[in-house]
Amino acid sequence: MRVDGRPTRTIWLEPDHESVGIIDQTRLPHAFATCRLASLADAANAISTMQVRGAPLIGATAAFGMWLAMRDDPSDEGVARARSRLLATRPTAVNLRWALDRVAAALARCPEPARADAALACAGQIVEEDVTINRCIGEAALPLISRIAERRDSGPVNVLTHCNAGWLATVDWGTATAPIYMAHDAGIAVHVWVDETRPRNQGAGLTAWELANHGVPHTVIVDSAAGHYMSRGEVDLVLTGVDRATATGDICNKIGTYQKALAAKDTGVPFYAALPSPTIDWTIRDAMTEIPIEERGAEEVTRLTGRLDDGTVATISITPPGTRAANPAFDVTPARLLAGLVTERGIAQASEQGLLALFPERQDTGDQEGAT
Amino acid sequence: MRVDGRPTRTIWLEPDHESVGIIDQTRLPHAFATCRLASLADAANAISTMQVRGAPLIGATAAFGMWLAMRDDPSDEGVARARSRLLATRPTAVNLRWALDRVAAALARCPEPARADAALACAGQIVEEDVTINRCIGEAALPLISRIAERRDSGPVNVLTHCNAGWLATVDWGTATAPIYMAHDAGIAVHVWVDETRPRNQGAGLTAWELANHGVPHTVIVDSAAGHYMSRGEVDLVLTGVDRATATGDICNKIGTYQKALAAKDTGVPFYAALPSPTIDWTIRDAMTEIPIEERGAEEVTRLTGRLDDGTVATISITPPGTRAANPAFDVTPARLLAGLVTERGIAQASEQGLLALFPERQDTGDQEGAT
Repeated sequence: MRVDGRPTRTIWLEPDHESVGIIDQTRLPHAFATCRLASLADAANAISTMQVRGAPLIGATAAFGMWLAMRDDPSDEGVARARSRLLATRPTAVNLRWALDRVAAALARCPEPARADAALACAGQIVEEDVTINRCIGEAALPLISRIAERRDSGPVNVLTHCNAGWLATVDWGTATAPIYMAHDAGIAVHVWVDETRPRNQGAGLTAWELANHGVPHTVIVDSAAGHYMSRGEVDLVLTGVDRATATGDICNKIGTYQKALAAKDTGVPFYAALPSPTIDWTIRDAMTEIPIEERGAEEVTRLTGRLDDGTVATISITPPGTRAANPAFDVTPARLLAGLVTERGIAQASEQGLLALFPERQDTGDQEGAT
Repeated sequence: MRVDGRPTRTIWLEPDHESVGIIDQTRLPHAFATCRLASLADAANAISTMQVRGAPLIGATAAFGMWLAMRDDPSDEGVARARSRLLATRPTAVNLRWALDRVAAALARCPEPARADAALACAGQIVEEDVTINRCIGEAALPLISRIAERRDSGPVNVLTHCNAGWLATVDWGTATAPIYMAHDAGIAVHVWVDETRPRNQGAGLTAWELANHGVPHTVIVDSAAGHYMSRGEVDLVLTGVDRATATGDICNKIGTYQKALAAKDTGVPFYAALPSPTIDWTIRDAMTEIPIEERGAEEVTRLTGRLDDGTVATISITPPGTRAANPAFDVTPARLLAGLVTERGIAQASEQGLLALFPERQDTGDQEGAT
């Protein structure tokens, strides 16, 4: 997507082919800064300090990290060491393990002198596949926006989104944002209601920054205001991302998604969740009991970081000293509240039947797993 | 309620009977400071700068302001001038006009030399009536908590509240908080989930401060987390305040109340709204079309005030420069989502029939109003 008018991705091979460039997301939205990763240590550090974040982008960064490691030590021991070093950065991110396993498998088939080139090729594939998957998600969901625009005499299509399921969490396009960018680029008037997304403010910080840089009109609202705008007919469509979906179409996503889905259902606004198919956990049927909810630190609730009027970045406490806070990072939205799940293969009904219709090969998998 | 172990109200006549004491709420929760109002100008300023806030407390402050004014100029002109000066401070607060009209009516019956004393007596009545109303609300709702406690083998009764419908918004007790304080004082184990209540953070700031000072166990959560805890069985009861109720039992309250009520309905958690009966607008039947929603400044969303680590208070911006934000202050929760309305006369079903059963004298009023 565009930053200051220039097409930009979240990660790239630098032109000298010596290092990898990333956007330092810890400094957004208060400063746009890029940095270079020139070693395994740099790549591991970028993931663990959340300079890069979002499961697909973490996976891509780890794959490039393997390339940087192979330049120094392409031995079997070097592969194992780099893999375990990178895996330890964010142990819960599914895409991280998936990307590392994929690179490691490619390297196992290679003589040592060819390993750096093989890792780079694999990282490049992972990056391009991510772009393709998100573009396909965008193309699948674009008609949801364009059909509303066609029926409308005037005014933009109002899309509400929660958290950041944008290009900053992937390599390009994003999941929930891909159809929004495509509609905007196609000349369809789109306006985005951006949920602030407390406590980490990925909406107010990252999604607003993304949309502003690409020129998409948007308005930030507090998380509590979404239902109000839905009840007033000012939201045409809700689009969010997904952290993990079950085989039955329930989704686990950023805390607050459940309340948006309830409001959408109550007001008749269609709610779609967008996800690359690897986000579907075919082994799970009951999200409420089978997906553990990450409980994060209380300080994310009680303290906030932003810009003072002199431009410096500062952190303030907003609660009385000693206040106890709880911070569940995700919640579960049952399939019954969803209008559909947008995948790279198209839109599925949020149900076991709906998902299997789009991924028929999983019918067998499920049976086999059930039989073992 | 208690502050540092001492019973405290939000407003009081100072022992020298020369001035009125208030808690400066603009400095909460970062500092507890009181100040003295010694003139009409002081009282008007305290309301307009929100040193006092909450409709009942604004009314009480205005009544005391009339007393302070009468000491200087008890003429008819003086009464009119003081009334219009105070009325202009917060033109939308219903209780402000009600309190001023009540004091002005008492003064009209008085010779000038007796007006200061009459105004003071009237202010004292308004204050004591507010305390009584809130105590009655507390007594009416206390069984909602105690019945849950009786059925429970262990662990506290978990009450979730939104915004500040606490004693800081009234003279003492609060509306939604009154039964919580009573249960706690009666030795019932209560734990309160305190919604942060963006954008002005009345939950994270004021409600958490109140509960901490009175010793009631509580946990601050982001507004988005309420539905999650309800879905996990960790909320027994939701209690909120009301800014305005209709004759049919709909409520208009702090933005986000609607989403909580949806989650409560979906998860089977009873949701009660507490209100003094003057909050019921018997002339209105459709909250969605008849109650205008106040749109407040965008900076309340994009900027936040808190304590830096050195203890000084600072304001930060959390969105990219130039970000547009919208800030509706209230939303409408339809009666169908409410388990009941707690008033000083008891608990009414949230419906026209339910309200009229508790306020039968309004049956005639409605008919008369309909006939004119």
